[in-house]
Order: sequence, then C-alpha cells, then structure tokens
Amino acid sequence: AAPKPKPKVEDGVFGTSGGIGFTKQNELFVGRVAMIGFAASLLGEAITGKGILAQLNLETGIPIYEAEPLLLFFILFTLLGAIGALGDRGQFVDDPPTGIEGAVIPPGKGIRGALGLKEGGPLFGFTKANELFVGRLAQLGIAFSLIGEIITGKGALAQLNIETGIPISDIEPLVLFNVAFFFFAAINPGTGKFVTDEAEED
Amino acid sequence: AAPKPKPKVEDGVFGTSGGIGFTKQNELFVGRVAMIGFAASLLGEAITGKGILAQLNLETGIPIYEAEPLLLFFILFTLLGAIGALGDRGQFVDDPPTGIEGAVIPPGKGIRGALGLKEGGPLFGFTKANELFVGRLAQLGIAFSLIGEIITGKGALAQLNIETGIPISDIEPLVLFNVAFFFFAAINPGTGKFVTDEAEED
Repeated sequence: AAPKPKPKVEDGVFGTSGGIGFTKQNELFVGRVAMIGFAASLLGEAITGKGILAQLNLETGIPIYEAEPLLLFFILFTLLGAIGALGDRGQFVDDPPTGIEGAVIPPGKGIRGALGLKEGGPLFGFTKANELFVGRLAQLGIAFSLIGEIITGKGALAQLNIETGIPISDIEPLVLFNVAFFFFAAINPGTGKFVTDEAEED
Repeated sequence: AAPKPKPKVEDGVFGTSGGIGFTKQNELFVGRVAMIGFAASLLGEAITGKGILAQLNLETGIPIYEAEPLLLFFILFTLLGAIGALGDRGQFVDDPPTGIEGAVIPPGKGIRGALGLKEGGPLFGFTKANELFVGRLAQLGIAFSLIGEIITGKGALAQLNIETGIPISDIEPLVLFNVAFFFFAAINPGTGKFVTDEAEED
C-alpha cells in the first residue's frame, strides 16, 4: 500500500500550514541580531546616558501613536517574531548520543582539558533551542524598552532607575554581565541540529 | 537492524529536550484563558473607566519594582508563555484531506447550508495553530497593559487615548469588535489536531 500522506504541520506564518514563514533557524538568526542590538543599546545607554532612540536622534517622550511609523512597524515585527507568529517551522533536536566514548572526557592539552571540560564541545551547555529562547527574550526586551522610551523619553536602564552616563568602569556589574551574556549568547552556536518538518519522513 | 533512535526534540521548558513543560495544547488553553481575561478587562475598563488593576483595587502609578511581587510574577509568567518558553511541545497538524467528497459542499438544511457553508465545520477557518497565535497576542496585550497601568495608573484603553467610563452603547465599535473577537476566538475550537513528538514514530 502507498504510505499514508504526512499531515501538514501548522507552524508557518500566523500558524498556517503552507510552508511559508520563518524556520526556527531563521528565527534564531533574527534572535541573535536582537541579542547584539539589545546588548549594544544597553551599553550605549550606560555610557552616554541616552536611550537608544535618543542616541539615534529620534523624538521621544511622545504618545505611542505619534512615533515614526517605521519604528512602530519594527516594534510590531519584533513582537510578532518573539511569539513565533512570523513562522516557527521545523524542529531543533538533540545531537545523537555518542555511546560510551562520548560519556568519558578524553585527556586534553588545553586549559579546558585541565579543567575537566571537553576540548571540542561548546563552552557552555546551551542548545540551539536555548539560544532561540534567549533571542526571544532579547526581542521582548527591545520592544519593551523602545515603547517605554517613546513614552517616557528615558532609556531602558533609566526606566529601571539604573545610573547611566558613566565610564565603563563604574557601570553596575549586573548591567555589564547582561551585556556580556547577550553578546556571548549571540555568537555561541549551541548544540543540537535543525531538522525540517519534511526531513522526518526519512 | 534496529531502527535508529529518534532524536529528542528540544521543545520543552526553556528549550530543553527532557519532555518537561507545556505542550502546544496546554499553551492553547492558557491562551484561551488570556483571551477571555483580556477581553473582560477591556470591557470592564470601557464601562467603569478604570484599568483592570484599579478595578481590582491594586495600587497603580508607581515604579515597576514597587508593584506586588505576585503581580510581577504573573506578568513574567504571561510573557514567558507568550514566547513559548514554558514549553512548546508537540505539533498542531492539519486534518487529513477528505478526498473529492470533502471538496464538494453537500446540500444542507440550515442557514449555513443556504449560504454555501458546510453545515458541520467551523464557523470561521481558524486552525488550532491560528488560535494559539491569537492567544499569544492576548498574552502580550495583558502584559503590556498591566505594565503600562502599573506605571501610568491608566488602563489599557486610556493609555491609547480611547474614551472610557461610558455606557456599552457608546463604546467605540473597534473596542467592541476586539472584545467580541477575543471572546469568540476563546471558545472556537479551531480545525486540525494535536500530535505529540512521540506519535510521529508510528
């Protein structure tokens, strides 16, 4: 008998099943861009004391509907991306288990081997799906801080009552940690691999 | 040879692969609750002129970090749910095609048959995945309106400069449409069905 046709997965743009829209890989890329952008805007605000919109010379302290249409469109795009509405196709799956030899850390020559870490693996244990989650957090952070700055005229940090406009050495450690975390997560590839909905048929 | 073990899908809580966290069905349920809650809070504000927090006698017009911890936790939960971080397991798939007989609308006896609509099907063509998307929109709407009301002391509608505290007959049609849409989407089952990650193995 002919194989039963595989049902179409509803993970395209706005929950459609036509195979149109971002894959999880596309989303992860957008998320990485968001991580870098969010980290850079926080760092820029900490140093200059101006929110990202003020840094870009855009008008702030105005009602939301008076903001630039392009800016509002960008916020909408970012929010829809964060909830996976622009498409969320395919799956991230764990790397296949490597058997007993994968469970033993081979002796290495570098610092990481000396610390009992694998020489070749990822530095910390984020999977690609974890990375996608961090990217969505960054997208939410961008949307909230932009909307907040449009209305209040204050940057993301100033809205949280964090001191800004200071030398890097005086920046709150928590802010620096966040900036470093997002920068690092943006370039950390993450374990696991992407499979399309169709690849499952094999 | 033994069948190759299926790789674990990374769609659990925070992108983990251990099978822990919301399924898409769980998310859809939370989303439906969010739709009803958001619609009810908008309707309540339109009539009473008070935002949902003011209706609940909670303090507003304060910095975000002075808000009730339970309220902040609720906002965090809602946002994490909206980006699928609490788990996004399994898939919604289209109903199987019904062949040629499914393509022809059989003659019916009711109003819907007279209008050329199928008697039995959904009234409008939302799939479960579309419903999930609407639920996430409602979750974002709740989070934004709560944060906005905490800080500004104004409800979601007042923040958008929409007139409130008026009889139902005077409410803006767009507001009523939104309320009706969310209420209806909350109870519309949606087409398609849910399959777990494991079910694919069959």
